[in-house]
Amino acid sequence: MSAKIISVKSPKAYDIIIQNGQLDRSGELIKSVAKGNNCLVVTDTNVEPLYLDRVVHSLESSGFNVSSYVFPAGEESKTFRTVENMLGAFVSAGLTRSDFAVALGGGVTGDLTGFAASIYQRGIDYIGIPTTLLAQIDSSVGGKTGCDLVYGKNLAGAFHAPKMVIIDPDCLDTLDEKAYSDGLAEAIKYGVIKSERLFNRLLQDDAHNFINELIEECVSIKRDITENDFYESGERMLLNFGHTIGHSIEKYYDFKHITHGEAVGIGMVIMTRAAETAGECEAGVAELIIRCLHNYKLPATTGIEPEKLCAGALNDKKRRGKDIKIVIPKKIGTCTVKTLPADDLSKYIGGNK
Amino acid sequence: MSAKIISVKSPKAYDIIIQNGQLDRSGELIKSVAKGNNCLVVTDTNVEPLYLDRVVHSLESSGFNVSSYVFPAGEESKTFRTVENMLGAFVSAGLTRSDFAVALGGGVTGDLTGFAASIYQRGIDYIGIPTTLLAQIDSSVGGKTGCDLVYGKNLAGAFHAPKMVIIDPDCLDTLDEKAYSDGLAEAIKYGVIKSERLFNRLLQDDAHNFINELIEECVSIKRDITENDFYESGERMLLNFGHTIGHSIEKYYDFKHITHGEAVGIGMVIMTRAAETAGECEAGVAELIIRCLHNYKLPATTGIEPEKLCAGALNDKKRRGKDIKIVIPKKIGTCTVKTLPADDLSKYIGGNK
Repeated sequence: MSAKIISVKSPKAYDIIIQNGQLDRSGELIKSVAKGNNCLVVTDTNVEPLYLDRVVHSLESSGFNVSSYVFPAGEESKTFRTVENMLGAFVSAGLTRSDFAVALGGGVTGDLTGFAASIYQRGIDYIGIPTTLLAQIDSSVGGKTGCDLVYGKNLAGAFHAPKMVIIDPDCLDTLDEKAYSDGLAEAIKYGVIKSERLFNRLLQDDAHNFINELIEECVSIKRDITENDFYESGERMLLNFGHTIGHSIEKYYDFKHITHGEAVGIGMVIMTRAAETAGECEAGVAELIIRCLHNYKLPATTGIEPEKLCAGALNDKKRRGKDIKIVIPKKIGTCTVKTLPADDLSKYIGGNK
Repeated sequence: MSAKIISVKSPKAYDIIIQNGQLDRSGELIKSVAKGNNCLVVTDTNVEPLYLDRVVHSLESSGFNVSSYVFPAGEESKTFRTVENMLGAFVSAGLTRSDFAVALGGGVTGDLTGFAASIYQRGIDYIGIPTTLLAQIDSSVGGKTGCDLVYGKNLAGAFHAPKMVIIDPDCLDTLDEKAYSDGLAEAIKYGVIKSERLFNRLLQDDAHNFINELIEECVSIKRDITENDFYESGERMLLNFGHTIGHSIEKYYDFKHITHGEAVGIGMVIMTRAAETAGECEAGVAELIIRCLHNYKLPATTGIEPEKLCAGALNDKKRRGKDIKIVIPKKIGTCTVKTLPADDLSKYIGGNK
């Protein structure tokens, strides 16, 4: 099968290339966009034994000087300290302003590597090679990068678009079921916010049967949205559907024992129920989302009280001043951004009970 | 006297406002551009006792919720660790995406605060209130921000333009002579690269007699250059005149015992002599620069061997791949960027001996 290329035009032009088995061609693909000859491949201890050698070999075969940097896998590594150490590896690799980094791995790897690249010498290029479903359909597209601070999650970061994204769906073969579902929760989100067709297929078929088309459609939706609103002043907020409450749930569990996708799934259900209660969403949408989540063994409810969910959500950085912006569905395939006084969130959500 | 306003259009529009005594009006000025109500004023232990209270008072009088963060004065504070601590102060101050930071102080304060603002929640606004001559005519304009890493100077940073720059020339009254000259070296640089008129006046008159006009002219030159080339791919490199060798001199002395301006002055002389020897610059220009430096008690020579200067310069981040870009004058008021193979720098400079 030939490669599927999704081109992003703004704010910088780059291609997202989807093709099975192309990990071994990454050097050749990158050669077409690289300015310099030195590169640093960043990955974590989970991905290193699986794919690092293949990518390094391909880059070396294309004539690049390749160094690598491996950090401990896991959300706990997403720190300012890891970014500092990674920048040390950029220096050791001799990267100049024309050289580049490669992010080989999941969301944490992409976020950290993109952020380090964005601040190294005030910004160098990086290439994304996402290896998890979540990273392939979501975090590798759109240029949001960052890390946690000791003071809170995702507090530091930059908007820094990659120079190319190389998606090899074969990498998903090494994901366990939980990691796979983690990504599918975001796919369901794309369906609810922008594509009734995708949502219905996820409901009626098994995502494994059409995974390449699913990746293409999700990436296309994210491309369209982020191209129009790179710096998240408007439409891009739709992508946060389920995330305000989702982040609060993740925070409640200290970002352990629950995946991002699981939390977002629950967040979507809570917001949809609230919107139905408020008469702002068609009746029955929450039930459809729950059925879809259950299809992929994703939870739809949490025992956390609404007050606690709201308190967590109101510390979230997406809040501007005294208002909070939330995303609610009108129906499957159509969502809207609603501005609420922060104090009213609890009442809005609390109507669920 | 009425305020002099220099407007910057690109990549973001903002005003640089020059007026004596306006420190006490900073709240009112900032009110006209601020989106949020919370702010954090960042300053160092030198500037805190001089100006912090006045700025905080002015901001509070305009209705802002003001917090402050003070770090130890000095180049040693320009670290990734200070940025991390400063981000903690952003969090404690409750800054949201619509709030802002204020950089009150010299170059280090501006670089650190601008950088922290650029990465906090992927970028919030900041206002520059530069209090040294160097910061007023150079570092506060153009949006270059950053810090050192343990691996080297100025290795991390971002291009992040301020939302407004408030220049109060009265602040210069508290500068000692060495700090004043530190800034004048950059003023001489502006003369050599862009304004024969400014250079001649610096040579024939005493800068103290026309400091407001000097600030205006330097800021205008920097505005023109950085507006055309914000990301330093071309003309902006002219601003590095004297800096490639200057940084190497600073590095040689471990950034102690010599000011940035002193090092840049020597760097300008070395590059100009080399250009004269190569027949690329009018004869006599180096002598004029030396006379002008001496007027302001700035050194014009160093005992460091050219080989060591080159070795230091070649580790500088301004190098792209195997070539190095250097800035050389053709005559006073006109400079050009020249690309040399990195290995030829020593020969080019060595011709001085």
